[in-house]
Amino acid sequence: MQAAQSALHPRWSAWQPRAGQAVSLKDLNPGAKPFSLGSKAEDKAAVEALAVELDALQNLFYADRRYKLLVVLQGTDTSGKDGTIRGVFGRMSALGVHTVGWKAPTEPERARDYLWRIHQQVPAAGEITVFNRSHYEDVLVPPVNGWITPEQHRQRLAHINDFERMLCETGTVVLKFMLHISKDEQRQRLQERLDDPSKHWKFDRSDLTARAQWDDYQRAYEQLLAATHTPWAPWTIVPADSKTHRNLMIATVLRAALQGLQLRYPPGDPALEKIKVE
Amino acid sequence: MQAAQSALHPRWSAWQPRAGQAVSLKDLNPGAKPFSLGSKAEDKAAVEALAVELDALQNLFYADRRYKLLVVLQGTDTSGKDGTIRGVFGRMSALGVHTVGWKAPTEPERARDYLWRIHQQVPAAGEITVFNRSHYEDVLVPPVNGWITPEQHRQRLAHINDFERMLCETGTVVLKFMLHISKDEQRQRLQERLDDPSKHWKFDRSDLTARAQWDDYQRAYEQLLAATHTPWAPWTIVPADSKTHRNLMIATVLRAALQGLQLRYPPGDPALEKIKVE
Repeated sequence: MQAAQSALHPRWSAWQPRAGQAVSLKDLNPGAKPFSLGSKAEDKAAVEALAVELDALQNLFYADRRYKLLVVLQGTDTSGKDGTIRGVFGRMSALGVHTVGWKAPTEPERARDYLWRIHQQVPAAGEITVFNRSHYEDVLVPPVNGWITPEQHRQRLAHINDFERMLCETGTVVLKFMLHISKDEQRQRLQERLDDPSKHWKFDRSDLTARAQWDDYQRAYEQLLAATHTPWAPWTIVPADSKTHRNLMIATVLRAALQGLQLRYPPGDPALEKIKVE
Repeated sequence: MQAAQSALHPRWSAWQPRAGQAVSLKDLNPGAKPFSLGSKAEDKAAVEALAVELDALQNLFYADRRYKLLVVLQGTDTSGKDGTIRGVFGRMSALGVHTVGWKAPTEPERARDYLWRIHQQVPAAGEITVFNRSHYEDVLVPPVNGWITPEQHRQRLAHINDFERMLCETGTVVLKFMLHISKDEQRQRLQERLDDPSKHWKFDRSDLTARAQWDDYQRAYEQLLAATHTPWAPWTIVPADSKTHRNLMIATVLRAALQGLQLRYPPGDPALEKIKVE
């Protein structure tokens, strides 16, 4: 069950953390376009074509039923998580694809361990579940705000690795994407939301608080990327200042991972072929 | 959060697996009564008194709300899991105590990892949850029947340790009891169920299948006891041919564990004391 690994794309590995090495986000250009075909028009067409391919692969994934797929999307506010879901997963059938958007935990959720609500939403056999934010918020917000001790922070990173290994060993492919935008790009996107009343619903005052803690969040991201990039649940850092290229890169990685699974329709039943429906 | 350990009872430790050592169930006498006060009448009275004490401790546990308590009861058919729940937990308020009886997994449960349904039922802050059978069935029935490979068996034992450590590190006290009866005692108890029509509802033909695999199950128990007895989730092997003594031993261990937590009512609010209810 290490299919996600075997499907490594040559241009992909440069955007993955390296085992045992620190991650430096400032050395990774959020404006880079490693998967670009040349022009924006070409990239847009490629994303469209990929979305159609992914729809067919998802159908096969659903019929095959040997695997589950968990896709984790993480990134600061305005990094494009919603847009990724529309652009990359938008063509797939809602029958086998579920999206879960994670908000601050409710009181019953806070009364259990932080992985309790997460575990409940993992995909069933044949299903694809996309997490819009995830358990990784629990190793971002609390340490940045000093709500947990460094010891608890380390424990959580270990819990998450254990949890994801268990998912992998029981048939779940786990793919994690960190949408990496520049601080300047975030300023423009937040300002757009403020300038356009029809986008006010997307704005939350707490976005500005988190922006003021930009450096702390980048550090917490670097720490989790280094600690939780594993053979069984790899991270891909996605340069995300360009929305089209972001979708192109994620869709390409996703296709490679699905193709690596050697999906197939379950064997047919010869007895069925003899039945005549009257 | 290793309170369960610090509360070690001197007579208790002889009935716990030893770190790094194999467990031999046939060397542990199911008819032993290490916690007995002398006569059966005295033991019965002690169980009654303990049940009252445990009720008071559970009230305090509920008010304190710093911990969660998960009690796992495992044992072959007729080993007395239901009787333990009646005898030891029967006096406690249903407000803070929940019992979960685990049966064969349903189809949605089989479509996820085997810990999915287990994690959903873990106790919330201030709650005591008693598992009547548990995730340990997943390292008993499948390996005994050859439904999982030895590699998967080893992986599961590791998953369970990881899972329980995470629970412990997020505030859950985990106490596990293996009810140890002799093969002869089981024969008598099964025969009783067959001879008395009012007890037929408790009998299942599969009990006889499992009885025929007695040695295999004992071996699987020895393996899990050695592999999953941890500082954060210790096992106690309970000699269970005597029902009264079984309850006495479990209630005593449970009281010691709860007392070890130094439970307290949350600090009062001086402002409240000044309010006059009109």
